[in-house]
Amino acid sequence: MVDLVADYWETMRERQPLPDVKPGYIWDLVPKDPPAEPEPWSRIFADIEPVIFQGTTHWQHPHFFAYYPSACSYPAIMGDILSGGIASIGFTWKSSPAMTELEMVMTDWIAKAIGLPRFFLNSDSGPGAGMIQCTASDATLIALLSARARAVMAMKQNGIDRTAQEEVNPNSQIINFESHDPVYFSKLVAYCSDQAHSAVDKGIMLAGVRMRKLKSTKDDRFNNYSVEPNVLEAAIKEDRAQGYIPFIYVATVGTTNTCGIDSLTKLGPICNREKLWLHVDAAYAGSFALCPEFRYLIEGVEMADSFNFNCAKSMMINFDYSPMWFKDAKEAINYFNVDPTYLKHEHQAVASDYRHLQVALGRRFRALKVWFVLRSIGTTKIQENLRIVVNRAIQFAKLIEKDEHFELFVPQHLGLGSNDINERLNTIINDDKRIHLVPANAHGIYFLRVAFHSSTTEDDVKYAYDVITELAEALLKSEL
Amino acid sequence: MVDLVADYWETMRERQPLPDVKPGYIWDLVPKDPPAEPEPWSRIFADIEPVIFQGTTHWQHPHFFAYYPSACSYPAIMGDILSGGIASIGFTWKSSPAMTELEMVMTDWIAKAIGLPRFFLNSDSGPGAGMIQCTASDATLIALLSARARAVMAMKQNGIDRTAQEEVNPNSQIINFESHDPVYFSKLVAYCSDQAHSAVDKGIMLAGVRMRKLKSTKDDRFNNYSVEPNVLEAAIKEDRAQGYIPFIYVATVGTTNTCGIDSLTKLGPICNREKLWLHVDAAYAGSFALCPEFRYLIEGVEMADSFNFNCAKSMMINFDYSPMWFKDAKEAINYFNVDPTYLKHEHQAVASDYRHLQVALGRRFRALKVWFVLRSIGTTKIQENLRIVVNRAIQFAKLIEKDEHFELFVPQHLGLGSNDINERLNTIINDDKRIHLVPANAHGIYFLRVAFHSSTTEDDVKYAYDVITELAEALLKSEL
Repeated sequence: MVDLVADYWETMRERQPLPDVKPGYIWDLVPKDPPAEPEPWSRIFADIEPVIFQGTTHWQHPHFFAYYPSACSYPAIMGDILSGGIASIGFTWKSSPAMTELEMVMTDWIAKAIGLPRFFLNSDSGPGAGMIQCTASDATLIALLSARARAVMAMKQNGIDRTAQEEVNPNSQIINFESHDPVYFSKLVAYCSDQAHSAVDKGIMLAGVRMRKLKSTKDDRFNNYSVEPNVLEAAIKEDRAQGYIPFIYVATVGTTNTCGIDSLTKLGPICNREKLWLHVDAAYAGSFALCPEFRYLIEGVEMADSFNFNCAKSMMINFDYSPMWFKDAKEAINYFNVDPTYLKHEHQAVASDYRHLQVALGRRFRALKVWFVLRSIGTTKIQENLRIVVNRAIQFAKLIEKDEHFELFVPQHLGLGSNDINERLNTIINDDKRIHLVPANAHGIYFLRVAFHSSTTEDDVKYAYDVITELAEALLKSEL
Repeated sequence: MVDLVADYWETMRERQPLPDVKPGYIWDLVPKDPPAEPEPWSRIFADIEPVIFQGTTHWQHPHFFAYYPSACSYPAIMGDILSGGIASIGFTWKSSPAMTELEMVMTDWIAKAIGLPRFFLNSDSGPGAGMIQCTASDATLIALLSARARAVMAMKQNGIDRTAQEEVNPNSQIINFESHDPVYFSKLVAYCSDQAHSAVDKGIMLAGVRMRKLKSTKDDRFNNYSVEPNVLEAAIKEDRAQGYIPFIYVATVGTTNTCGIDSLTKLGPICNREKLWLHVDAAYAGSFALCPEFRYLIEGVEMADSFNFNCAKSMMINFDYSPMWFKDAKEAINYFNVDPTYLKHEHQAVASDYRHLQVALGRRFRALKVWFVLRSIGTTKIQENLRIVVNRAIQFAKLIEKDEHFELFVPQHLGLGSNDINERLNTIINDDKRIHLVPANAHGIYFLRVAFHSSTTEDDVKYAYDVITELAEALLKSEL
């Protein structure tokens, strides 16, 4: 299997990034019933090419410019092999001490590598902590639920009236979870940028609170879509006047749409002063803080209550790997703890039981991946890779700037170049199949976005540009 | 790494199941800062024994009788290697067609193997569907959120009064998600057995609804803790009289505590008639339905709205792997869909976008694990393994029944034997370190529970019995 994966990587350029298959293709290739008796591995291996590779969108292909990079490296796969081989489930410290402890050290390593403040470290004596979530969506939901619980408790302490709701009959056996009392939810409003990822909308929706998306504008610092402080302040004032309670701002550092960035230095003081939980969703751009020259992107992070980014995008650590830090993890744990007898153990007071900071109980040994990747590759080489991604985007942006048919929709940011072009060109490019990219939409304008990986060469950037311009010119001619 | 894992398995008996480490042990073994430059693999490999193995609770150890079995097999690890090597992220059909399609066929394979009704199959023309969640906790939360949305929509359609809450100002920019309107939450009550797993409590808490745990009794069918139909009916009547709206029953098939089982044939008709969503959490016991003789445990599953169990417990498929089936997935998808432009694709009408049935956007290629395991091992051999687990528990139960000091707290069920014994014996057994088990608590009685794996031999069962009786006798003598 290791050889097969190595061959797959080495012959990648012979494939097209997007497969030709149509929905339902697999039903003709795979039996509809499970086999009762074992099959030889030779037959299983022979099926991998037609069933799997022929139906795969090859994210590691150098002509894949869609979505965002998906990290992949052999040391990370080594971590998965060992995690699978140990097959312990780390839901408490005692159920797998090494899993919890290595996760504590590794989130500290990453925190230091990207320059997070000391209070986020597990080795710091304060209530801050770092841990690994599956995805940024999970991290956002956990931040929302923590913030919701904090807001409910504050409303109770401040004696804010419950909306008129019959009190629970004292003889009733119905349980109302104190910090998750829904009577308070309908007053709560979560804010985010209109450029925030759909995972933020989904998290707010599932948390059962109200959402308000704040209009972003191209700001002076990042020259990209950001929410200005006066917009946030005006929303808070307006919504409070209507009886709402703004309780969280989910800031975005590197949106999927345009790589738009909310300035933490501008919005953080407002959140802290007005007692809004500040969650920073740096899913895409967070990795780049490994390079000191890009660390300005998360300046002001000391004002955040929680911070998250995906190592599984540009940091050579395979999905899933989404570290999250809490300024006060002890508080958050209180909101999620529902301990039964079979999970109690004698070390609960001192050791971290990470299950309280996520929805799931079970946990894999994901910290092995970062341990192997950082030790066998080193942070210097990962920084170099990140700079390659950025340089590819700069190269592409220059080609677009010089081209009469295109304009940069937003300036190049990190590994995302983009341009204003119509929906039809997007369809033509993807039907052509030589390269793969996805469109986006900001304030009603449909545009193409191009994402680069560290495996993209300069020639690949030129190739993408040539394919796009060739197809665009043909489209323009046909419309004359 | 493959050799290292093989050696770990082969020399397992030389280790003790529970490690000797204390919380914080790792800080002396691992540097506090990430390395800038690469280290040789020989140095990394040398650290695996002291840092990882010496701090691991060895779930695959034959003298590990705690929690539940954690599935592990080499074909499953092969699946993880390939998933890591492809490193595509399957959040839409188009982002990785093979990932979605193989998941559709594999959940059908498992559904057929355990005898689920046809309407749950992806290959069936109806709105039913199967997919893979990370864990049973995730499945329970998704069922709760779907059921909550269905209940909110029904309340709106039936014109049930909102609790007095100011209407949203039409000029406000605040968004209220229609099927997740919190104004309706505080009337909603979720039911489960008092034996339900803590993940059910947690899910209900996070969904922001009320919970009522129903008293279980030893029933005539399973001779274990079950909620009787008259208990459920009385609760519905009582709570409705108080203005509440019971909206879901989370049934338990094989609880962690006692392997207690709610009878679906008894409770299903009530849920269907009273329009309660019936979610079946068969996390532990579901695998056993692979054997026809244990399929009676899920009899009545055709009345369920959603069904879930963990292949990662007794089915040789490494964690995480928790398939979930929906009777009406189309309805559930409506409650979760928040599609942005960059995730739209031309096949959305026909192909499954599994992201809508989970919290996370990203997804790994987990279906490869079951494809490799079922093909290279076959269902017959997996059935044999399940029967070994049950036979070990029967053997242990017989030893306990004959012993004057012990009694079976509940009859042996599947792979869980148990007995009534005090908290001190539990501490002594686990301090002794020869075997590892965890206690439980039902209706205020503290007892020890013993879980078996397919790697447990008959001698290991005898060994566990001998260690327990030796320590119990010493304890009894010291107390005289």
